[in-house]
Amino acid sequence: MNSNRDYQKVLKNIYNQLLFEEDFGTVASYIPELAKVSPKKLGVYLQTNDGEGYAYGDANEKFSIQSISKVFSLSIALSILGPSLWKRVGVEPSGTAFNSIVQLEYEKGVPRNPFINPGAIVIADILVTYLNNPKQDFLNYVRTLSGEETIDYDLKVANSEKKTGYLNAAHINMLKSFGNIQNDVEEVLDFYYHQCSLSLTCKELAQAFNAFANQDKPFLYNGITLSKSQVKRMNAIMLSCGFYDESGEFAFRVGLSGKSGVGGGIAAILPRGLSIAVWSPRLNKKGNSYMGMRFLEEFTTETDLSIF
Amino acid sequence: MNSNRDYQKVLKNIYNQLLFEEDFGTVASYIPELAKVSPKKLGVYLQTNDGEGYAYGDANEKFSIQSISKVFSLSIALSILGPSLWKRVGVEPSGTAFNSIVQLEYEKGVPRNPFINPGAIVIADILVTYLNNPKQDFLNYVRTLSGEETIDYDLKVANSEKKTGYLNAAHINMLKSFGNIQNDVEEVLDFYYHQCSLSLTCKELAQAFNAFANQDKPFLYNGITLSKSQVKRMNAIMLSCGFYDESGEFAFRVGLSGKSGVGGGIAAILPRGLSIAVWSPRLNKKGNSYMGMRFLEEFTTETDLSIF
Amino acid sequence: MNSNRDYQKVLKNIYNQLLFEEDFGTVASYIPELAKVSPKKLGVYLQTNDGEGYAYGDANEKFSIQSISKVFSLSIALSILGPSLWKRVGVEPSGTAFNSIVQLEYEKGVPRNPFINPGAIVIADILVTYLNNPKQDFLNYVRTLSGEETIDYDLKVANSEKKTGYLNAAHINMLKSFGNIQNDVEEVLDFYYHQCSLSLTCKELAQAFNAFANQDKPFLYNGITLSKSQVKRMNAIMLSCGFYDESGEFAFRVGLSGKSGVGGGIAAILPRGLSIAVWSPRLNKKGNSYMGMRFLEEFTTETDLSIF
Amino acid sequence: MNSNRDYQKVLKNIYNQLLFEEDFGTVASYIPELAKVSPKKLGVYLQTNDGEGYAYGDANEKFSIQSISKVFSLSIALSILGPSLWKRVGVEPSGTAFNSIVQLEYEKGVPRNPFINPGAIVIADILVTYLNNPKQDFLNYVRTLSGEETIDYDLKVANSEKKTGYLNAAHINMLKSFGNIQNDVEEVLDFYYHQCSLSLTCKELAQAFNAFANQDKPFLYNGITLSKSQVKRMNAIMLSCGFYDESGEFAFRVGLSGKSGVGGGIAAILPRGLSIAVWSPRLNKKGNSYMGMRFLEEFTTETDLSIF
Repeated sequence: MNSNRDYQKVLKNIYNQLLFEEDFGTVASYIPELAKVSPKKLGVYLQTNDGEGYAYGDANEKFSIQSISKVFSLSIALSILGPSLWKRVGVEPSGTAFNSIVQLEYEKGVPRNPFINPGAIVIADILVTYLNNPKQDFLNYVRTLSGEETIDYDLKVANSEKKTGYLNAAHINMLKSFGNIQNDVEEVLDFYYHQCSLSLTCKELAQAFNAFANQDKPFLYNGITLSKSQVKRMNAIMLSCGFYDESGEFAFRVGLSGKSGVGGGIAAILPRGLSIAVWSPRLNKKGNSYMGMRFLEEFTTETDLSIF
Repeated sequence: MNSNRDYQKVLKNIYNQLLFEEDFGTVASYIPELAKVSPKKLGVYLQTNDGEGYAYGDANEKFSIQSISKVFSLSIALSILGPSLWKRVGVEPSGTAFNSIVQLEYEKGVPRNPFINPGAIVIADILVTYLNNPKQDFLNYVRTLSGEETIDYDLKVANSEKKTGYLNAAHINMLKSFGNIQNDVEEVLDFYYHQCSLSLTCKELAQAFNAFANQDKPFLYNGITLSKSQVKRMNAIMLSCGFYDESGEFAFRVGLSGKSGVGGGIAAILPRGLSIAVWSPRLNKKGNSYMGMRFLEEFTTETDLSIF
Repeated sequence: MNSNRDYQKVLKNIYNQLLFEEDFGTVASYIPELAKVSPKKLGVYLQTNDGEGYAYGDANEKFSIQSISKVFSLSIALSILGPSLWKRVGVEPSGTAFNSIVQLEYEKGVPRNPFINPGAIVIADILVTYLNNPKQDFLNYVRTLSGEETIDYDLKVANSEKKTGYLNAAHINMLKSFGNIQNDVEEVLDFYYHQCSLSLTCKELAQAFNAFANQDKPFLYNGITLSKSQVKRMNAIMLSCGFYDESGEFAFRVGLSGKSGVGGGIAAILPRGLSIAVWSPRLNKKGNSYMGMRFLEEFTTETDLSIF
Repeated sequence: MNSNRDYQKVLKNIYNQLLFEEDFGTVASYIPELAKVSPKKLGVYLQTNDGEGYAYGDANEKFSIQSISKVFSLSIALSILGPSLWKRVGVEPSGTAFNSIVQLEYEKGVPRNPFINPGAIVIADILVTYLNNPKQDFLNYVRTLSGEETIDYDLKVANSEKKTGYLNAAHINMLKSFGNIQNDVEEVLDFYYHQCSLSLTCKELAQAFNAFANQDKPFLYNGITLSKSQVKRMNAIMLSCGFYDESGEFAFRVGLSGKSGVGGGIAAILPRGLSIAVWSPRLNKKGNSYMGMRFLEEFTTETDLSIF
């Protein structure tokens, strides 16, 4: 890649190529509010560490980032607790689907990693314990990270998920029975559903993730600070565990650190290089955006940018 | 066994023999209120189908019957729904501990049998749906079955269990996520904890269970009616699934149909012969009364009474 | 049941009734030699403890008894080792399909019970250790039990199974890795495949099983002796574990102790009453004879004979 | 890192620092021949893509590379079959210990990845099918990769492993029962045990792995050729799956692609930068070299070299 103009061209070329490919995914239906989104959306935003940004397609439309928010909450918990965080949650891939309760029981209430739902719920519990105003503080942090003050929770989505969230209620009660939840179950779930309901555009997401791609810039946002080594570790966890039971496939086909959400978003990082966010609502069988993965696969193939 | 006097002597002999044996069990501690019971209690009551009763030890002291109540609730659900009940719960032994959530997930929300906690919670949901006044109706039924109007819920135990019942909350939410709970989660759990908190004496328990031992007498109590074939099936399920992950061991060593509870009670049946209830609070590693099982093992050995 | 003539009539009536029912089973195909059997066969033989026998249908045709042979081998191992046998194999239902290797790993090489394949292979290992001429001694024992000297192994079946028995090879190597196989792997499997290949008629099978139904007659056949208590325990294990993952269902619907085989046979027992063998090759999804179970269900319903 | 002299100093400093740390690992005992190695060995060799090499400690002593050989065999299979390879083996981390047979059964005979034993056995089966002289061809390939003609199998180790390899025998029979092994079971295991018995020094190992670190150099060794994209994918699989159930931890603490073996070796790669091999026989509880991981953790911390 020689110049900024090339990136714009690459995004456009891939976008146009994918228009002719069949989308084998289906929109997530378990959160009723999410099922209303038009399945044809496709947007991408690339943010280089040099400060250049490139948009294509529906890059400036808000969507529900869902599990991508787990990266933000993990970074806060890591900043607060440091290495002692790893007593409450592991860093290993789960080897099973994202909502399996089996492993949780087997591992005695210590979730395999912070990105499967039980792990993210433990992280939410930590934030409820340590933040003064959990929901407001979390929101302010994401606003600062992305540089957009308009970012907000989507209360319809939060409520929609809460009403049907029996599996998460099963998880948190299981965790509580093992002593790995300190706060009231309802309060933690309320925070968790707000966190997942955040609406961002591809642009805002890529801008927020650039903080994790830029190891040579101090990480300090709204009082949340991470060392260079901690930023690297965020990237390592994203690579190992960011895509449910398809993390190996993503490393294999794409070769970037990243995190997906059931809203169809994927935010990815080339450490010391760039961040990129893609959005396409239809999910493959493993729960990751079908076209989002295709886009990033083509992107690293064409640009020869990859961790490996 | 030739005469009534023999039974009295058998109970006495076994009781005195066990006084010299070490009790390798420990009192259940996960329900705080249960941990207060004196661990040295030992009582037994035998009720023949001919109407004779034999008591020894602490046979007239109330204790928390806990999971033994699942036999009563199952009989009501079977009476109401008939064979369609088996779409919501199976009849196979679980092959794992009584509170494992693994199998529940694997079997897509249909609990293996009505005696593991998730199965009993589904049964509780059915009773909440079909009984007019679930808690009162259930109480009246057990009172009629046992012929003792003083039987009641122990609200301290019910509350103690509710406060620490995160695992049951996990189970019911998991069941709800699979669509196998029709009522409000809190309402079902409230009924379930009441049901488990019933206090009965060995005498009352043996009298209540005699209805299941007496296949040749019409089963009709407080409007709950079972056919002869259904009574047999109750006994079959008790034999296959009545002792958590130790049902095979109980069939092997004792050879009666029965059900245990973490309060240390065991109610057992020789079909067409007798019912017998034992109580000793210390539990073995599988969660069944250590001395209760020893007592019944000696009983069937000495009397040569057994299903097999 | 009032007279012997009634039994003959009952068998005839059920047989004729089942002719008009659809057989929803399918013949086992994983052992090629077994797939050659005519799927329409249906035979039954009832042997009372009084010495009366009743046949109907294909009751005198030989078929491969397969897993039913595990009852014979277990009785020998129990006779030789007594209670120390239970250190090498358990007595609990498996809660999963008959060929699952999962539980074996989880339980550290001690199979759940002697009727799942890994358990039966451990029993075979014991017989190879303790019998002077394992294959000949085992054959002689079954001949004496049934009173028919013509009983023999079907070498075609034994070889057919050996050639495709990779799963059993997996099991025995797993068991060996846990130290629960003492002899050479090949030698044990050779004995095991011979054991399973035994060909008996319904009549021979019912006669052989009568020894387990007749607790009041001394059990002594070819030097193999069991106490009355041990005979009862054989029946308890059959009831708890005799039908793979359908033992609860069999207890529930039929209410007899018994053991099935993939050749389509079922041998069952009413303790202190009678033994009965049914044969119909088509298996239901759990691996048990579809019509065999239907026959026995009708039998206990019509005669009101049942353990419960 | 500014100059070559710095690398030598870094290796020395870390080596000397670790001499004062307690080694919490224990030497693998399940392969008797491996248990004979002195537990105090510690060697390291770093090979830059520029062709410079740096040794420290026992860097020139041969040791059994064991599972590290799976990287070599995978590269051959990938070269031969291309993408169709992924029908027979996956690319996802296993989420459980390296010898678990559970997942294999659950996934219907398709191992999760080529580095758990069942996966490596499938790869061995492929090599037995496609190589003319499997053992000799494999040896020649590794010799060419590392540039050392003296590399050879250690037949004592191969035999030692074969004699006690009941678990691998269980795996391969399980795979065969699912149709995922094409050759004779004994022949494939014989090749597999030879492959694992290869003896290399840290220097030879680092030199061999440099081929995978050097994406910009054509990969062609003894007729085995990989595209640039395929070399990247080798690195992605190593990062996701190279350390049994500790791959996430390795990515998190070290941040390199790599593969460990129970002989105590670890070979790791910084894509487009360098390869490094460490050897220290004592293994942590997850089966990876305790000091080897410590060494690499210190190495990436001090040099600030890491994928992330």
